[in-house]
Amino acid sequence: MSSVNIAIIGTGNMARTMAQTIRKVRHAKLYAVVSRDPERARAFAREFHARRFYGSVGEMVQDRKVQLVYIATPHTEHYQAAKICLLNGKNCLIEKPFTVNAEQAQELLSIAAGNHLLAAEAIWTRYMPFVQTMKQMLDSKLIGEPVQLSASLTYNIRQVPRLTDPALAGGALLDLGVYPLNFASMLFGDDVIRVNASCSYTENHLDEQDSISLIYRDGKVANLSASMVGVSDNRGEIIGTKGYMVIENINNYRSMSVYDARGKKIRFVKAPRQFNGYEYELQQVIEALESGQTECAAMPSSEILCMMHMLDFIRGEMGITYPFEKKERPAIPTQAQEERTEPEKEQEDEQSRAVADATEEAFLTHEAQKALENGAGDTAPGEDDPMNGQVISSPDEEIRVDPKEPADGDENP
Amino acid sequence: MSSVNIAIIGTGNMARTMAQTIRKVRHAKLYAVVSRDPERARAFAREFHARRFYGSVGEMVQDRKVQLVYIATPHTEHYQAAKICLLNGKNCLIEKPFTVNAEQAQELLSIAAGNHLLAAEAIWTRYMPFVQTMKQMLDSKLIGEPVQLSASLTYNIRQVPRLTDPALAGGALLDLGVYPLNFASMLFGDDVIRVNASCSYTENHLDEQDSISLIYRDGKVANLSASMVGVSDNRGEIIGTKGYMVIENINNYRSMSVYDARGKKIRFVKAPRQFNGYEYELQQVIEALESGQTECAAMPSSEILCMMHMLDFIRGEMGITYPFEKKERPAIPTQAQEERTEPEKEQEDEQSRAVADATEEAFLTHEAQKALENGAGDTAPGEDDPMNGQVISSPDEEIRVDPKEPADGDENP
Repeated sequence: MSSVNIAIIGTGNMARTMAQTIRKVRHAKLYAVVSRDPERARAFAREFHARRFYGSVGEMVQDRKVQLVYIATPHTEHYQAAKICLLNGKNCLIEKPFTVNAEQAQELLSIAAGNHLLAAEAIWTRYMPFVQTMKQMLDSKLIGEPVQLSASLTYNIRQVPRLTDPALAGGALLDLGVYPLNFASMLFGDDVIRVNASCSYTENHLDEQDSISLIYRDGKVANLSASMVGVSDNRGEIIGTKGYMVIENINNYRSMSVYDARGKKIRFVKAPRQFNGYEYELQQVIEALESGQTECAAMPSSEILCMMHMLDFIRGEMGITYPFEKKERPAIPTQAQEERTEPEKEQEDEQSRAVADATEEAFLTHEAQKALENGAGDTAPGEDDPMNGQVISSPDEEIRVDPKEPADGDENP
Repeated sequence: MSSVNIAIIGTGNMARTMAQTIRKVRHAKLYAVVSRDPERARAFAREFHARRFYGSVGEMVQDRKVQLVYIATPHTEHYQAAKICLLNGKNCLIEKPFTVNAEQAQELLSIAAGNHLLAAEAIWTRYMPFVQTMKQMLDSKLIGEPVQLSASLTYNIRQVPRLTDPALAGGALLDLGVYPLNFASMLFGDDVIRVNASCSYTENHLDEQDSISLIYRDGKVANLSASMVGVSDNRGEIIGTKGYMVIENINNYRSMSVYDARGKKIRFVKAPRQFNGYEYELQQVIEALESGQTECAAMPSSEILCMMHMLDFIRGEMGITYPFEKKERPAIPTQAQEERTEPEKEQEDEQSRAVADATEEAFLTHEAQKALENGAGDTAPGEDDPMNGQVISSPDEEIRVDPKEPADGDENP
């Protein structure tokens, strides 16, 4: 079996982490890198021994040797990049959150299904083997019937500009809240009959601290929270009728402690040693491709979509809409708009500017546009010159500080 | 200073615990006990060396030697018993929850204020000295600015009939949910701008597992939960910008561990040794009486009422009304009632029966009724015969399993 040629879009923290991970995974090979900053792409390609580098997604997708694309850009750019890739026959592994809303996710998954391509979400906590350990413990009924779950993810990362920018779909939910939500979904399923969500807000009306309750049809309850202003132990707990389980770090499982009804610890299971934890998602994507599957069992398309709908619903409860999602204002002002106060008008004007910024599509070059229109390009870039990517002058790439790797510690075990 | 003569209403677990506690508290003296079962009252009085026993509240309040009444009956009976006591000049220490709704609480507090009497709530976690330790730790800013709090109380006590009986104001909220709510109120205050609450339901539409989110004006968030079907460690956590604190057992504080931003434990404070923890509330009530105060600083009337309003609001969110709170059905059925399905009708008929049972007022004897009408009675029972209480034939008292003393362990430290 030959290796799968992988292209990475982005050169930030997650891109570097994945480049290191690729080296450790069987049948995975870093083939190309894409950055709108050509110098950064060149340096990245050199450092990680990628054969190609490209200044745009549109150019990269014309390279027929690319078999899998790992998308590590800020999440507002996932949809555009993935759409070009999928329309041009490239399988995708997309960083979490898959997209910024369910509408985008549905479109990407439809394109993938129509083209028999894989579009997986890189929500690493789904793919880790410790998930099975937790599930087996629940199945063993050592804690009796599980009835309640709590999970929290909390990092003080409010200094990261992206997180407080509405145009970049900032807020705690899409960066942090997704982990407790996935934790609940994995262990309690998705038969939720009521979702309650509320939050505190940042200055520009993004969710700063989330509090989410899920009520399941069978009477189970999940209490989930996230915060981008506090620090905590990111604990998960599953409460049963006869005991309870505590999971250390729901974002990168360290251990599971099981207690009886009197609070006596009766089991302790350490998470297995791992390279950095990202190898599991990559391994499973490679295995799916090798066996001709277009989904990963750990996070199938239906689950990706379910989670995106959940995020949309939660945002609805919180009253949060990203500026680029807002309906266009009618040309003739309605009465409601006439009644806007001056501060409201100013705010809306600011939001309009933010929309314009967000939809600038700096990443979408002429070539990309063509590729998007024509499907797979006919002309692949010359193979002998690894520096052949057309250099595009464009603004600096956002530096992405992923919560998986906060500045302060949280090393992998 | 002479001792305060205390009468206990009820002979269940909490009554026994308080009888033991009274012996340990300076200036507190068990003087009388009230039970509708005269044999039980007699045995209790003998065991704990009380001078008097009574078969009804109405008789007891005519005893001018009683200075303080501790009400330890099921919470649906607090209002009736306390009203008779307060109207007859008796100070009251009422087990939590103070009453079953804010309307009842408001009336009791008004009567108490009008008669310059103390009406305190025996929510023991408010009076414990460890509260000040936690507050001082928060004030020290060792964990930075506190931003989020979580607290949970969970006991598997669904086998206790009272908890699943709507007529007895069962459900997790009034028995368990009050502790996380009080924990949040003590540490984050009461300036709450949004309350979200949902729950799973018992078969007869009481809250079995509660999930409550509070959003504070200053952006703090509290995630609270309670369950009467699971077991857990009843942990509290306060998340700050630079670290976090974990409180072991929010229902009977054991310790506080303080962690820095990297999760390193930097402080550990054990709760002080105590008799059983109930001595603090009793001490403070006695001290208030001795100094002529009608409130305890740890749980003043305003706070009692605030908490009862919060409980009402939460029940509103959950759609839970106790049958005795329901408005009387109009004589002529409305269209909506005509449209009731057969199962609905059956359920409502059952609820009507439950209302009848609950309002039977078995505890309210003829004497009590008279006392309620006339204020303090003129005739005190003879003092020389401790067995002089008129014996009333009545159904057995509910056996109250208080969550403070679950069947399985949870010994005091």
